[in-house]
Amino acid sequence: MADIIIHEVGPRDGLQAEKQSVPTAKKLEWIRALDGAGVDIVQIGSFVHKEKVAQMADTDELFGILAKEEHKAVYSGLALNEKGVERGLACGVQMFCLGVSASDTHSYKNTRMSAEDALRRVVAIAKEVLASGARVQVSVQSAFGCGFEGRVPEERVYRMVGSYLEAGLTNISLADTAGHAHPAQVRRMFSAIHDLSPDIHCTCHFHDTYGLGMANVYAALESGVTSFETSFAGLGGCPFTKVVAGNVATEDLVHSFQRTGSCKEINLSELVNVAQEVSNYFGREMTGRVHKSGFLSY
Amino acid sequence: MADIIIHEVGPRDGLQAEKQSVPTAKKLEWIRALDGAGVDIVQIGSFVHKEKVAQMADTDELFGILAKEEHKAVYSGLALNEKGVERGLACGVQMFCLGVSASDTHSYKNTRMSAEDALRRVVAIAKEVLASGARVQVSVQSAFGCGFEGRVPEERVYRMVGSYLEAGLTNISLADTAGHAHPAQVRRMFSAIHDLSPDIHCTCHFHDTYGLGMANVYAALESGVTSFETSFAGLGGCPFTKVVAGNVATEDLVHSFQRTGSCKEINLSELVNVAQEVSNYFGREMTGRVHKSGFLSY
Repeated sequence: MADIIIHEVGPRDGLQAEKQSVPTAKKLEWIRALDGAGVDIVQIGSFVHKEKVAQMADTDELFGILAKEEHKAVYSGLALNEKGVERGLACGVQMFCLGVSASDTHSYKNTRMSAEDALRRVVAIAKEVLASGARVQVSVQSAFGCGFEGRVPEERVYRMVGSYLEAGLTNISLADTAGHAHPAQVRRMFSAIHDLSPDIHCTCHFHDTYGLGMANVYAALESGVTSFETSFAGLGGCPFTKVVAGNVATEDLVHSFQRTGSCKEINLSELVNVAQEVSNYFGREMTGRVHKSGFLSY
Repeated sequence: MADIIIHEVGPRDGLQAEKQSVPTAKKLEWIRALDGAGVDIVQIGSFVHKEKVAQMADTDELFGILAKEEHKAVYSGLALNEKGVERGLACGVQMFCLGVSASDTHSYKNTRMSAEDALRRVVAIAKEVLASGARVQVSVQSAFGCGFEGRVPEERVYRMVGSYLEAGLTNISLADTAGHAHPAQVRRMFSAIHDLSPDIHCTCHFHDTYGLGMANVYAALESGVTSFETSFAGLGGCPFTKVVAGNVATEDLVHSFQRTGSCKEINLSELVNVAQEVSNYFGREMTGRVHKSGFLSY
């Protein structure tokens, strides 16, 4: 079985949806624990303007501190534009995540640009990142449907992925920002995208708005996807979509994958501890299951 | 595509896990709404001794009232023994559900009998029900793992299903009472069981203890299962298992199936209303998603 990559996006996609601010020291504690638990990639934050998402204001500081420490995980950061990449390169980002929404409405709300314009810009920025020597992942957001527009034509997503591939960008994530994906669609779309290039490395990212997050994870896995973006305790949600709902919980996904022999290098107890601490910190019940129910060890 | 059967077990499996009692009039309201929404089968209650599960004390009364009304849904009832069947036949049960746990520990806690002894008894009772003209469904509980014992040998489940089939009992449900099932196992086991007889009609029943409920539903669907036991708002849990967690939510499953063209005869708005009323009644956040997020109509 192919190696599974877990990309923990809790410190970014999880926390950006939260009003209650998290001190830098607390974020560092969680991120170090995630690294210690053996997660492959941890997304530290987003290089968005601090007035737009205050929770992400310490992203540069976090990278500055973490880049000096020993760590096994790759630390990724989300950049929205040239300025974000510049900030990221200055503070030691190892992997840049850049994305474009497949929905014009969502794209405008997020970037004040149409999907086409945003795509051209992101491709140009991503090529610069590659030239700088850092890793880059490009994504199509709202790839499976849009909270505002509803159905997103699959052909549009394939064209966007095609543009990435033409530019030599092969590390591609499809994000179900609104949670509209269903398993048959996930299977169909990842199969079609895998057919576009033998070099493509696909990542998936599912929100659980309508209860299909984990079912979609399995549909993606069965379509050859080996890389999964998930969030501790199931936290998360894009602040610029319509119905905000959390991500698939990291510890739930790792728990289920471990039962069939994958992700064995990850320390699930430590992941569960982080999820419990995150849940305690915000003082409310989170959607993730395993940090509440405990886990099966057979 | 084969017709999908939705068996709503909320009034039984959902409510039996709740301490706060629900008045008979309120149950009637919910059950009538479920029937009106077009659910195929509604499980009204359990013929358990009222001192064991007080919430089920009005089961005979509910059937007595509902049997006299016009309804499209089949009304099912859970019987644990001969006495239960006798009570059920007296008040107009259309479909009896009988079950045996594949785990001795769970079986003892539930029935004070070993799995083998309970199986012999249930087979004998089920044959009597068939002879009476009522429908019968027999189940294997803890079929995918046990909260107390952990792994349940799959061969044991196949033998139990084989005993049912030998007795002419072809309407068979596998229940994941503890929520241990994972998609690969679900696919393997339902495939094996479908191979046992061309006459078998399989039903599945998944608890969401570890976040895999809906993923298991899709694995079952892909293995040819067309009949699903679910509970409004995701309520539920066997009072005699170790880690209690809710069922897959009826409205979440119907919502996702409708998106690919199944279950079109069910009125989803009405299902969502019931789930919201159940949630409001108990005054806490339920695990079902669609009754909180609204639903997609494309």
